[in-house]
Amino acid sequence: MNATDPVTLWFTGLPGSGKTTLACLMAERLRQQHGLKTEVLDGDGVRRMIGGVGYSREDRRRHVVSSAFTAFMLNKNGIFVTAAFVSPYRSMRKEARDLIGRRFVEVFVECPISVCRKRDPKGLYKKFKDGLITGLTGVDDPYEVPIDPEIVLKTDDYTPDECLLKIEEYLKTR
Amino acid sequence: MNATDPVTLWFTGLPGSGKTTLACLMAERLRQQHGLKTEVLDGDGVRRMIGGVGYSREDRRRHVVSSAFTAFMLNKNGIFVTAAFVSPYRSMRKEARDLIGRRFVEVFVECPISVCRKRDPKGLYKKFKDGLITGLTGVDDPYEVPIDPEIVLKTDDYTPDECLLKIEEYLKTR
Repeated sequence: MNATDPVTLWFTGLPGSGKTTLACLMAERLRQQHGLKTEVLDGDGVRRMIGGVGYSREDRRRHVVSSAFTAFMLNKNGIFVTAAFVSPYRSMRKEARDLIGRRFVEVFVECPISVCRKRDPKGLYKKFKDGLITGLTGVDDPYEVPIDPEIVLKTDDYTPDECLLKIEEYLKTR
Repeated sequence: MNATDPVTLWFTGLPGSGKTTLACLMAERLRQQHGLKTEVLDGDGVRRMIGGVGYSREDRRRHVVSSAFTAFMLNKNGIFVTAAFVSPYRSMRKEARDLIGRRFVEVFVECPISVCRKRDPKGLYKKFKDGLITGLTGVDDPYEVPIDPEIVLKTDDYTPDECLLKIEEYLKTR
């Protein structure tokens, strides 16, 4: 963990798995305890800023890859990035990895969908149940589990603080 | 011109008007003579990194607005941005301006199309003439001239160095 070697921690997982929470907490930790410059990129936040981004496979792909480009540019300029994106397909995560290069750290936020559904922080599972939305990742849209992520965080078994420690351990031995 | 108040110099104009050249030279000037942190965002470069971005109006819009988001994030982190994008429609430049806010500086790179066609640095006008491409801005696709840009640079009348001076003058009085 070194100010001259910024990385992008790329949190992927189901809606409600804890990506955004961990991305925000980890950015705070890196800033406060390690004195690093950080930026959070949150999938929904980026969508709000850009507008008109749908949920087709190509829309999702472009959303992920153009956000990866932003992360790349921030890293290039010395900023650590924590990025929270469902990024459901392996192929699009591979594109993000190829774009960002060795600074890309895939963090699989693993959580059973039954737990995600109970948390439902954005009300998406309820909206799906009520027939208001379709194309919900993990329900009627695919989520391809990472095969070889750098870090796995089981957010139903571990506290947020334990998850942050696990990331710190990884970054220290990197 | 102040390291704590980074801006995005947004160069818009026809293909071959000199956007990329001026964006690169201006970034170099800000870095070397003013000690500022800079990044160049070039429309074609971003397209190459992201892939799969077409030339429909919506594709162009999203390309411009997601690049504006990258510029916004870089500004937020203290980096001056010079951005070279044809960005042919007023509405998409307004979206970029709204996203970036008061840091957005529109630089209209004005040059008669006859001159751009002679320069043709990317061979686009020739490709169009040979029937290899369509949708070329200024030829069979619209370019909406900026109504009230912060800076206008007539690249057929002024040298690159004169253009850079004009930008510096603007930034000093800003």
